[in-house]
Amino acid sequence: MDRGDIFSRPDSKWTEGKGPDADIVISSRVRLARNIKNMPFPYMLSEEKEQEILNAIKDIIETPGFREKMGTFYYIPLNEIDQLEKQMLVEKHLISPQFAQSKGYKGVIVREDESLSIMVNEEDHFRIQCLLPAMQLNDAWVLANQMDDILEQTLEFAFDKEKGYLTSCPTNVGTGMRASVMLHLPGLVFTRMGYQIFSTMGQIGLTVRGMYGEGSEASGNLFQISNQVTLGLTEEDIINHLTSVTLQVIDQERNARNLFLKEGKDQLEDRVWRAYGILSHARNISSQEAMKLLSDLRLGIDLNLIQGIDPTVFNNLMVATQMAFLQQKGKGEMQPHLRDQIRAATIREKITKKNGGHESC
Amino acid sequence: MDRGDIFSRPDSKWTEGKGPDADIVISSRVRLARNIKNMPFPYMLSEEKEQEILNAIKDIIETPGFREKMGTFYYIPLNEIDQLEKQMLVEKHLISPQFAQSKGYKGVIVREDESLSIMVNEEDHFRIQCLLPAMQLNDAWVLANQMDDILEQTLEFAFDKEKGYLTSCPTNVGTGMRASVMLHLPGLVFTRMGYQIFSTMGQIGLTVRGMYGEGSEASGNLFQISNQVTLGLTEEDIINHLTSVTLQVIDQERNARNLFLKEGKDQLEDRVWRAYGILSHARNISSQEAMKLLSDLRLGIDLNLIQGIDPTVFNNLMVATQMAFLQQKGKGEMQPHLRDQIRAATIREKITKKNGGHESC
Repeated sequence: MDRGDIFSRPDSKWTEGKGPDADIVISSRVRLARNIKNMPFPYMLSEEKEQEILNAIKDIIETPGFREKMGTFYYIPLNEIDQLEKQMLVEKHLISPQFAQSKGYKGVIVREDESLSIMVNEEDHFRIQCLLPAMQLNDAWVLANQMDDILEQTLEFAFDKEKGYLTSCPTNVGTGMRASVMLHLPGLVFTRMGYQIFSTMGQIGLTVRGMYGEGSEASGNLFQISNQVTLGLTEEDIINHLTSVTLQVIDQERNARNLFLKEGKDQLEDRVWRAYGILSHARNISSQEAMKLLSDLRLGIDLNLIQGIDPTVFNNLMVATQMAFLQQKGKGEMQPHLRDQIRAATIREKITKKNGGHESC
Repeated sequence: MDRGDIFSRPDSKWTEGKGPDADIVISSRVRLARNIKNMPFPYMLSEEKEQEILNAIKDIIETPGFREKMGTFYYIPLNEIDQLEKQMLVEKHLISPQFAQSKGYKGVIVREDESLSIMVNEEDHFRIQCLLPAMQLNDAWVLANQMDDILEQTLEFAFDKEKGYLTSCPTNVGTGMRASVMLHLPGLVFTRMGYQIFSTMGQIGLTVRGMYGEGSEASGNLFQISNQVTLGLTEEDIINHLTSVTLQVIDQERNARNLFLKEGKDQLEDRVWRAYGILSHARNISSQEAMKLLSDLRLGIDLNLIQGIDPTVFNNLMVATQMAFLQQKGKGEMQPHLRDQIRAATIREKITKKNGGHESC
């Protein structure tokens, strides 16, 4: 099983941190749910059928010409990797936490740069995902759509003229699309302006969540905004609506940062430098504290209060300091205390590599 | 009025940090209370008499041969210096906080290196003080005694054959001596072994206090141990008793540090490096937090967990980060916030000067 270096490096395309509004938008994601016509949904699928679907996908990525058009993909059968590796895929946002726990013939195909992937036999037969850095929702949609078209050349999807694509969960019926952006919003959190903004999202058909999807807490001031409604709208409607709301949130975050910088620059500088001081020297650090301090540091970089540190350190460490990647570094299962030590070492190495921070004034 | 550089540098002899057990004993102090025979105690002294006493001291330090024997002294009349300068003398432990607030003709004579001084017209006519770095109680007593002898060549002190030296406050009657050591006891604090030790001090005639004397809290894990009893003992008894108890406390502190190092090295290393990280990067720091972190850092230096930082940075910053020295640096009265900024800058400068810390492993 060739799987490239997916399990050896924490970087993905989306952690590159390059693109429009990369100071606020960490990543853009589009996910399409698709099911094969006249085939039971995964939760009542026989093992035989599961294998059939997996084989269909394998055939497609091995089709002559596919690679030239879509790039190199790796096929990763879930029952052939261990729990640690599954967790790494979760931390890279390539599979869902639920999928990592599930049994049976399931798998994921992943493009070399990890921007494009398909979960096979999760809640739906296929979950096509495109995950790009920064504000690139439309590009993500174009790429996911392209993959969808390729699948449709071979497979016939369950589709209803009235309802659209049929999915295992009724909330996905219609476009089968979930589009989302992950935003770094320290300004809105610090100034408490965020509460009001987030509380109105439901009214305009959007949902706000923490970094690792439904039910997860917002850690490191990271928020995911996604569409709630998939029915009665076109894909372009969804992308345009989410884009327009996101641009407004970006605007408000910039205002909040400027306000904070104007009213509390001293306080902010202290906060940013303390974060740098601790991150570059601590010997033990919990995931929660690391995310908090990395968020402070990233804000300081974005506001030019600290120089000489690559802002993408933040994006990269978001993945590299998660559990599975630390366990891999520590060669297997470990006590939380040891994990906190390896996390601290990983952060120190990454942050001080570039000759440390320099003062702005 | 020549006053050397007493008000321009925070360093004193006692902040040098050199001498026996300097890793635990910050300073040793001996103070002798003396009053002129047949002269009312200071609280009922006329201005005329106050001036008379001040002049007597001035005459002595200007006597031919005095300088050769005892060194260069400066005479500082309290009514000719401002409140900030008085506070600086308090922070250097050259005068008491009460003395800084008092009115009338009062003054202090201070040896160039600040190891020897005499407060004039405080609670008693003279308070001879010798303040040395590290565990040098006996040397401090010898030097204070020498100064006492010189004064007695010219002045006749109030002395009772039965009681000994008579003093304004009855608790000082007898030897008129207060001997004390300032100890850095993070090990006894962290392991909570200190409570028991300190609580038994009263039973053996000793008192434990914070860094700035009676009623002051122990900040930065600094504790002052002094004799309670001045009557019915010789000066040598007092010095020997305090020395012997201090040596036991030093022993227990060393044990506590070793225990902590053995049982919680990881935790200790993290604590030390975080202290270094914050001290060398924070932009605002309160006096209390600074003392706490400086104590952590000092412990790390003493336990060789961090290298390349001069341990006396701690002693020096204990004075340099106090209010008056910061205000002087900031050119006058200032808001607490600004004071915290200047404190942080002072610490950063001092700590990172020597090329920062290096890892021990």
